[in-house]
Amino acid sequence: MGGSLAAALKKANACRRVVGVVRRPEPATFALEHGWVDEASTNLAEPLPETDVVVLATPVRTILELVPLIGSRVRPGCLVMDVGSTKAVISQALESLPEHVRVVGGHPMCGKETSGIDAAEASLFEGQVFVLTPLKRTGQSTLALAHELVEAVGARPLVLEAEEHDHLTATTSHLPYLLACGLVGSAEQVAGDHPLLWQLAASGFRDTSRLAASSVDMMLDVLMTNRASVLAALDTYEARLRLLARSLRSQDESSLRQLLEAAAGRRRSLES
Amino acid sequence: MGGSLAAALKKANACRRVVGVVRRPEPATFALEHGWVDEASTNLAEPLPETDVVVLATPVRTILELVPLIGSRVRPGCLVMDVGSTKAVISQALESLPEHVRVVGGHPMCGKETSGIDAAEASLFEGQVFVLTPLKRTGQSTLALAHELVEAVGARPLVLEAEEHDHLTATTSHLPYLLACGLVGSAEQVAGDHPLLWQLAASGFRDTSRLAASSVDMMLDVLMTNRASVLAALDTYEARLRLLARSLRSQDESSLRQLLEAAAGRRRSLES
Repeated sequence: MGGSLAAALKKANACRRVVGVVRRPEPATFALEHGWVDEASTNLAEPLPETDVVVLATPVRTILELVPLIGSRVRPGCLVMDVGSTKAVISQALESLPEHVRVVGGHPMCGKETSGIDAAEASLFEGQVFVLTPLKRTGQSTLALAHELVEAVGARPLVLEAEEHDHLTATTSHLPYLLACGLVGSAEQVAGDHPLLWQLAASGFRDTSRLAASSVDMMLDVLMTNRASVLAALDTYEARLRLLARSLRSQDESSLRQLLEAAAGRRRSLES
Repeated sequence: MGGSLAAALKKANACRRVVGVVRRPEPATFALEHGWVDEASTNLAEPLPETDVVVLATPVRTILELVPLIGSRVRPGCLVMDVGSTKAVISQALESLPEHVRVVGGHPMCGKETSGIDAAEASLFEGQVFVLTPLKRTGQSTLALAHELVEAVGARPLVLEAEEHDHLTATTSHLPYLLACGLVGSAEQVAGDHPLLWQLAASGFRDTSRLAASSVDMMLDVLMTNRASVLAALDTYEARLRLLARSLRSQDESSLRQLLEAAAGRRRSLES
């Protein structure tokens, strides 16, 4: 996500300089070679006296570790934002930054199941929703700057409260991930006796299970920092599934048809 | 599926003549205009004295209605096959055809969530697995002819027993469909209070829920004719989901990581 954002900002010529700060030298070299950054560093502790905007783009719990290190390294007025997948815990962390730092949370709704610098692409954000979660202390001019950044990469800003973001993405993103993992786990179990199963796993299975290939480090942070909402979403989902199972078990075809038609109608109304 | 098969057979120049028999005049005209058939008819009761191969390509329970009408209309030695999504009930039906008719079941593993003649494409089968389910009475030469047909459209034949096919596709295909419907149903429920939810339904949600857009007529037939296997697959799946929920609820991060890593490893090993 960090690589894609750097690439998109460079492509839009939206920043005087784009500097990538990463843990390992390989992605730094890769990003430099692709012209996605003007400068790349692996020194996470470096002072950032000339930086206008810092974007933290790591798994959520790494963001929580990084936030306390930022305050003393940036100049007054610098905007610190993040693109972490859950927002409430990060909002709390950002709240603790010194008053002279400007803060806002962000989350572009265009994650991929592939990760790392070689999965980066400048066009990732185009036409996608980019959630912004202002804190109480986030002023109008700070939010306006965040809007500018979002629009520079071709995304559509959507302002939400951090809690509402987490509540809704539990259903739209974290739940689908767990379903995909559960589906792959089920198939693995059945394949124990029938290894041929994998040859029958066609595009329908692959679409439905795609998210299971996501970065486990990233998703573990998401689940652990949005636990209550994810468990609630799982409960709602299991109840829906039981409704489907019950009508199938009792051969109540008209109930079953009604449930399936409702899902089909809604799903067809969304983008493919 | 029928339209795609006709188009693929025509493209491969695999048949002397390809005749499409459909219920309504519009798809007949459409297929003729696209050069996917040499002739199109809406007369399902027409005798077929010169036909070498009849392929039944409709929802499963319509196939069950059509099979008894076929026997008296084809010449001795004609191959009757089908591309229905469940195979055991169709095998039983094919068994009842007169001895002079050759029979085999088939199921190409390349269904789409879109249906109808305008979703047809000649390249649909290329490189895909095409299951063949011989009956006891299916002789070697009949199976060889079915292989030829499958290979003519660029697919890879895989011979399975009808029951094994149904048992495995309950997990690889029918279960993913129900999960997708359950996910859309969950989201609908949450969106009742938060209509913004749909704006957050990004590619992860769309991939995981894509199958919910499938033809309800087709899928209702699938579920009703593979009920026991689908319910068993749902049970296995719910148990997997509870395992995930339990480790998340108890914050047992190492168990959770283990489950997620196993799913990620397997999913990454499949085609994207």
